[in-house]
Amino acid sequence: MDDILVVYKERPSLKDPIFVEGLPGVGNVGKLAAEHLVDQLKAVKFAELVSKYFPPQVLVNDSGTIRLVGNELYYVSRQDAANDLVIMTGDYQGLTPEGQYELSDRTLKVLQELGVKRMYTLGGYGLGRMIEKPRVLGAATDPELVEEMKGFGVTFSKGEPGSGIVGASGLLLGLGRLYGIRSACLMGETSGYFVDPKGAQAVLEVLAKILQVKIDFTELEAKAQQIDMITSKLREAEPTPEPKREDLGYIG
Amino acid sequence: MDDILVVYKERPSLKDPIFVEGLPGVGNVGKLAAEHLVDQLKAVKFAELVSKYFPPQVLVNDSGTIRLVGNELYYVSRQDAANDLVIMTGDYQGLTPEGQYELSDRTLKVLQELGVKRMYTLGGYGLGRMIEKPRVLGAATDPELVEEMKGFGVTFSKGEPGSGIVGASGLLLGLGRLYGIRSACLMGETSGYFVDPKGAQAVLEVLAKILQVKIDFTELEAKAQQIDMITSKLREAEPTPEPKREDLGYIG
Amino acid sequence: MDDILVVYKERPSLKDPIFVEGLPGVGNVGKLAAEHLVDQLKAVKFAELVSKYFPPQVLVNDSGTIRLVGNELYYVSRQDAANDLVIMTGDYQGLTPEGQYELSDRTLKVLQELGVKRMYTLGGYGLGRMIEKPRVLGAATDPELVEEMKGFGVTFSKGEPGSGIVGASGLLLGLGRLYGIRSACLMGETSGYFVDPKGAQAVLEVLAKILQVKIDFTELEAKAQQIDMITSKLREAEPTPEPKREDLGYIG
Amino acid sequence: MDDILVVYKERPSLKDPIFVEGLPGVGNVGKLAAEHLVDQLKAVKFAELVSKYFPPQVLVNDSGTIRLVGNELYYVSRQDAANDLVIMTGDYQGLTPEGQYELSDRTLKVLQELGVKRMYTLGGYGLGRMIEKPRVLGAATDPELVEEMKGFGVTFSKGEPGSGIVGASGLLLGLGRLYGIRSACLMGETSGYFVDPKGAQAVLEVLAKILQVKIDFTELEAKAQQIDMITSKLREAEPTPEPKREDLGYIG
Repeated sequence: MDDILVVYKERPSLKDPIFVEGLPGVGNVGKLAAEHLVDQLKAVKFAELVSKYFPPQVLVNDSGTIRLVGNELYYVSRQDAANDLVIMTGDYQGLTPEGQYELSDRTLKVLQELGVKRMYTLGGYGLGRMIEKPRVLGAATDPELVEEMKGFGVTFSKGEPGSGIVGASGLLLGLGRLYGIRSACLMGETSGYFVDPKGAQAVLEVLAKILQVKIDFTELEAKAQQIDMITSKLREAEPTPEPKREDLGYIG
Repeated sequence: MDDILVVYKERPSLKDPIFVEGLPGVGNVGKLAAEHLVDQLKAVKFAELVSKYFPPQVLVNDSGTIRLVGNELYYVSRQDAANDLVIMTGDYQGLTPEGQYELSDRTLKVLQELGVKRMYTLGGYGLGRMIEKPRVLGAATDPELVEEMKGFGVTFSKGEPGSGIVGASGLLLGLGRLYGIRSACLMGETSGYFVDPKGAQAVLEVLAKILQVKIDFTELEAKAQQIDMITSKLREAEPTPEPKREDLGYIG
Repeated sequence: MDDILVVYKERPSLKDPIFVEGLPGVGNVGKLAAEHLVDQLKAVKFAELVSKYFPPQVLVNDSGTIRLVGNELYYVSRQDAANDLVIMTGDYQGLTPEGQYELSDRTLKVLQELGVKRMYTLGGYGLGRMIEKPRVLGAATDPELVEEMKGFGVTFSKGEPGSGIVGASGLLLGLGRLYGIRSACLMGETSGYFVDPKGAQAVLEVLAKILQVKIDFTELEAKAQQIDMITSKLREAEPTPEPKREDLGYIG
Repeated sequence: MDDILVVYKERPSLKDPIFVEGLPGVGNVGKLAAEHLVDQLKAVKFAELVSKYFPPQVLVNDSGTIRLVGNELYYVSRQDAANDLVIMTGDYQGLTPEGQYELSDRTLKVLQELGVKRMYTLGGYGLGRMIEKPRVLGAATDPELVEEMKGFGVTFSKGEPGSGIVGASGLLLGLGRLYGIRSACLMGETSGYFVDPKGAQAVLEVLAKILQVKIDFTELEAKAQQIDMITSKLREAEPTPEPKREDLGYIG
């Protein structure tokens, strides 16, 4: 079989589209943000990526029917804006380095056909400690875009992220440059311990300004409250631990 | 060498054949069921799949001769029924995600040539606790087939299996849909701790009704008694443990 | 690069050649035996297999020069016998299942070109306990060869080896059958704890009768004495352990 | 996508160029040496190797822009010398054996196009103990080059390195011979516990004589002092341990 299959439901014709990616990762920030964007903008699914680089797995819907795990592509037609949108989210990232490269490259080929010239990838930046007000860190393909992002409140901080950006959110930028696509990665700060709707909201608040879209955050805020309840119960159940040296390191 | 070799002994011409798959997995339920079906229906082996996605291993027969590990295809010609049968069982599933996808896809290509339009994959649904009367859970490619399966006593339960179906029994459904093959997965409940002939019998009782075949369960019942004896001896040898929190979770 | 490179030094023309393989494995029995055979018969190296399925490694000779790890092919021209010989030994087996299959298949293609129709693969059969007089266990591609091997003192024992034969010694038999090559695997019993020249000698004593060659075992016996000395010193250094249940299992 | 992409910035025309490689490895000796050489000789970057055999990762520059991880090729034009230079360094070696082979082979194809006939690969030789005055051990493709290297103070010692040379520094020699490139590996002794600028300096002192270049070591010496300070602080913080048997083994 082909290493990657792009199964099209529809082949949309889009107006100078901007691409947004959010897949599972640290705190699931990118996936939460992209899924919320799909919901809010009533984006239409037009293609699925199925691949041997994903786990050999089907998921079972509530109705008892199945679907192969994969990544999904949605579009949003915007009559009142200069750019339509393409959004990718999905169940998994590629399981191997080879899979990561091949999936990102194949995605870029699809985007090239759609005429995408600008891209935003969404992810989480794991701090290893709880965070009240997550910042949004950035990285971009060129200095002009770095400046543009700063104007939207994105933080660019020397040495952060120190280990670079691993996975689709990084590769799409790096390989995308070879396709002539200018792009930025927006990373919401997160503890990384839990699924983190707060980090996703922080990222989307920036992205909403960039894309000039209105987003209602009621659902994400409800999810965040649920997570807060669970984590505070867990903390009550456990005796208060002595602060560890590594935790103090972050405070200092 | 080819990634997968299909070594044919015979190229049978079959009447609107239905495909049944049962490979090693949780509680070995699928493999036990498929092998019992082969025995009971005196199915005829017509092909073997040999592949670098299997372990580099030969098995030694009692006579001292060897055979490569792989998957085997059998057929059953049925003069008194509308559909002939094709059954697959084997020593292993593919070792890697890539191998799983490639083997399922290649199997589907073979089935397509044989004219298969309906498929049943058999497996176990691991509960992590002992079970007296295993149910048969289902998943299918389309809502009509879900309804049809309910008529045969198959349980469709929201959120079960929560993690989807991993391996050949899932992939054949998911990829099979791209080949236009309608199919259902039948999962016999099992503790998952032992090879489980009871789970296999539960699955076969449903399948017998679907395929309109008669199956004698004497041998499977004898195997089940052997397993029961071994496990009850093991329990005597060990002191009775306090019920664990996770076990109680299932009762509640 | 090619997945496997066969680098020829010479392309010998051989008379109905018989192939013997011995690569690293349990107790290194196969490799020891094949290397001793190469020494004793003054076999001539004519080709090397270099491959990405081996470790990315060069070895350094005593002179300071390097050579890539790989497998080596030797030949023996025998004027006084009906069959010339081809012998393979080497530094490693393939690192992955895929590598194992590809290397065995490529070796068989080379053998086919050389006109090989009979093959003996050498290996160790790990017992997990010390053994005084190792037997030689066998497996073969057809019942006639099983009988022939019995005549040379090879033991064929139901259920041994229970897990089949893993690696090149097994695959060459299994895949070789697809090339029409009749072959047997000869497995010398060994503890599997140490490099085992005794197991290698047992295998070679059988093989010498089959191939009608004379082999001097002085060197192998000297190596065996060295190993015996090391292991008896180790046993003195350690307090005598209580016999474990699993060890008793083998005695009973 | 291609397994390996060579992205050229420039296609230099070079005079009988000599190749020097230093990638991450034991004590990072090779990479430190190659980077220092690039700095000192003001080498010009002309190509990057990007590959799915590297991690799926981009690094973030201080300016907030990103670059894909990979290997980099530099050249040095030398009007006053018979040979120009090509230097390779980079972020990673290939992640898998296959990746190692493919990357080395692809590098050799690039070098062949550039007319390279002589190659020096740089690495560390891990001792597992602290070392005051690191020697430079060598290995080469032919006995003449072994003798030549001895003349530059390189140590060739029977049985060192006992396990051969693993990774690019070894493979480039082994595969390079198939391309007709004569080459030597220079290994600086290092504890292997830390990034080791002293080992890099030892290697560069030999290489400077071979290539007839002048190298200022001020920066490497400063780095070495930093490492010394850190390690001595660590030793103060920890109680003096009893010497372990394995450490004594090295002294004896």
